[in-house]
Amino acid sequence: MKKFLNTTDTLLAESLDGFAAAHADLVILGEERKFVRRRTLKPGKVGLISGGGSGHEPLHAGFVGMGMLDAACPGQVFTAPTPDQIAEAAAAVDTGAGVLFIVKNYEGDVMNFDMGREMSGATVAMIVTDDDVAVETSTYSTGRRGVAGTMIVEKIVGAAAEQGADLATLQALGTRVNAATKSMGVALTSCTVPAIGRPMFSIGEDEIEIGVGIHGEPGRRREKLQSADALADEMVGAILTDFAAPPGDVLLLVNGFGATPAMELYLMYHAARRVLEGHGVRVARSLVGNYVTSLDMAGCSITVTALDDELARLWDAPVHTAGLRWGV
Amino acid sequence: MKKFLNTTDTLLAESLDGFAAAHADLVILGEERKFVRRRTLKPGKVGLISGGGSGHEPLHAGFVGMGMLDAACPGQVFTAPTPDQIAEAAAAVDTGAGVLFIVKNYEGDVMNFDMGREMSGATVAMIVTDDDVAVETSTYSTGRRGVAGTMIVEKIVGAAAEQGADLATLQALGTRVNAATKSMGVALTSCTVPAIGRPMFSIGEDEIEIGVGIHGEPGRRREKLQSADALADEMVGAILTDFAAPPGDVLLLVNGFGATPAMELYLMYHAARRVLEGHGVRVARSLVGNYVTSLDMAGCSITVTALDDELARLWDAPVHTAGLRWGV
Repeated sequence: MKKFLNTTDTLLAESLDGFAAAHADLVILGEERKFVRRRTLKPGKVGLISGGGSGHEPLHAGFVGMGMLDAACPGQVFTAPTPDQIAEAAAAVDTGAGVLFIVKNYEGDVMNFDMGREMSGATVAMIVTDDDVAVETSTYSTGRRGVAGTMIVEKIVGAAAEQGADLATLQALGTRVNAATKSMGVALTSCTVPAIGRPMFSIGEDEIEIGVGIHGEPGRRREKLQSADALADEMVGAILTDFAAPPGDVLLLVNGFGATPAMELYLMYHAARRVLEGHGVRVARSLVGNYVTSLDMAGCSITVTALDDELARLWDAPVHTAGLRWGV
Repeated sequence: MKKFLNTTDTLLAESLDGFAAAHADLVILGEERKFVRRRTLKPGKVGLISGGGSGHEPLHAGFVGMGMLDAACPGQVFTAPTPDQIAEAAAAVDTGAGVLFIVKNYEGDVMNFDMGREMSGATVAMIVTDDDVAVETSTYSTGRRGVAGTMIVEKIVGAAAEQGADLATLQALGTRVNAATKSMGVALTSCTVPAIGRPMFSIGEDEIEIGVGIHGEPGRRREKLQSADALADEMVGAILTDFAAPPGDVLLLVNGFGATPAMELYLMYHAARRVLEGHGVRVARSLVGNYVTSLDMAGCSITVTALDDELARLWDAPVHTAGLRWGV
């Protein structure tokens, strides 16, 4: 294993310290680095919190700031944050309007966010994202996994929170965005968790994992490398099949898992867009880059969100975070 | 080799088509994809053009837009753009105030931009960047290489161009920014050029290349992997030694080469910042992420630009490109 680090025990702390220093205009670190908090809270606004295992950066700390999250709780690499992290974050961002948790559907995360809610004493609602259409149950999840679509839920709900929506409205909105959002991923390589020091799984020189999760957990099947067009056909096909009604305008996110060059991501975007347009779907908004990663995994996921005017307007609203910024 | 592509011959074209479609609000593609042009030119503004081999994305096409470049000429992977690409881009962005080329100091690039200048018929000035302090001459360059600092030159000169500075002023400014900017890189792995299909160089499981260039070309030496702190000590040390006078306020850029996770980049930022502060240097501006990449290489570079009030103000000015955006 070759990584930039001093010791695996201090990797997360040093990385968080670097993140907080680089973005000191946006965020502060909570005590004992239990959470990353938006520097300036907006009194009366519902507090939005997400979090999960580290190694998916910029998700989640990179989405703390105006128009998105108020706090993120970083667990150890690929490990859920602890309930006390979550409870302290909730207390730190609650300005009286309640707190909304946005949690990826992984058992450890859902359990700990549930416990954190009980411990917090705050009025907390929760959205569990499960946008991954690849598999119905998985290594670490009961039901579908929450993957790259989570950042779309965070963005759209974050915009509505910024505009003053109340807790019940935000929970309903987030549930609606999650239902309108479908993802599927493919891995070309494994990723290596620093504390373990070897790849999470082994994969042949000519093999790919179709439907992979964001921790390298298995997807639908292992097979030989295919062309980008064939992959886009299968992934977008699986996504479109999952919509009850064919979407009209969509947001198309092509998300890199960490080690895939931008050239290839834009090529996959081109391929995915062609498939969508072939089905009469109009790509009205686009995002291409590393947003929900799996450490140093090569691969990507495709996410499609069916947009209506409200969702498009909230997507377009200003956002100022380390990982996503426009309009400000 | 496992990459997302259909054929290596069409990779660049499909990627550019995807890029232009994803960022249709910002850019258009020139005929035969010879250049990526800012969608809306500003009459009377000096036209800024950069370019070079593909594989360094978002550099350069990702920096086309308001406050930065007017056009970028993408060559094949790690191959200079042709003179006719450059000449046509110059003609396409010249609105009467002349054109400025910003060129990384690599022999192929400098030669072709020189020929493009002669062919264009426009009034053209040129800045050659050579921020890499690692080696004095290299595989593909006479004199120091132009690396990640190039995007800082593009940003600062781009802001001044947007504000109406004339060609001579911009050339002098770019020359000054380049002289105030120093970089050094380190590779943990090689990168793989798609058309070649195998790594550019071989490197042991526990080895790193200190002072690597952005095409995987050799740097100062090959050695065993060191701690992040030791690497930051050496890299920042080499950079600071290169300044004639110790800088006061600086911009610190920690740039990923493509396959290094954000966690590690922020850890390196933390380490580099500590070294700078130990030398009495204040980090006044920061940027951490993949900006000048080497396909799928794992590694990073550190860049330090000595700031004065003018450079800081121009750095902060609004920019709206695919790869860098703030203030708008």
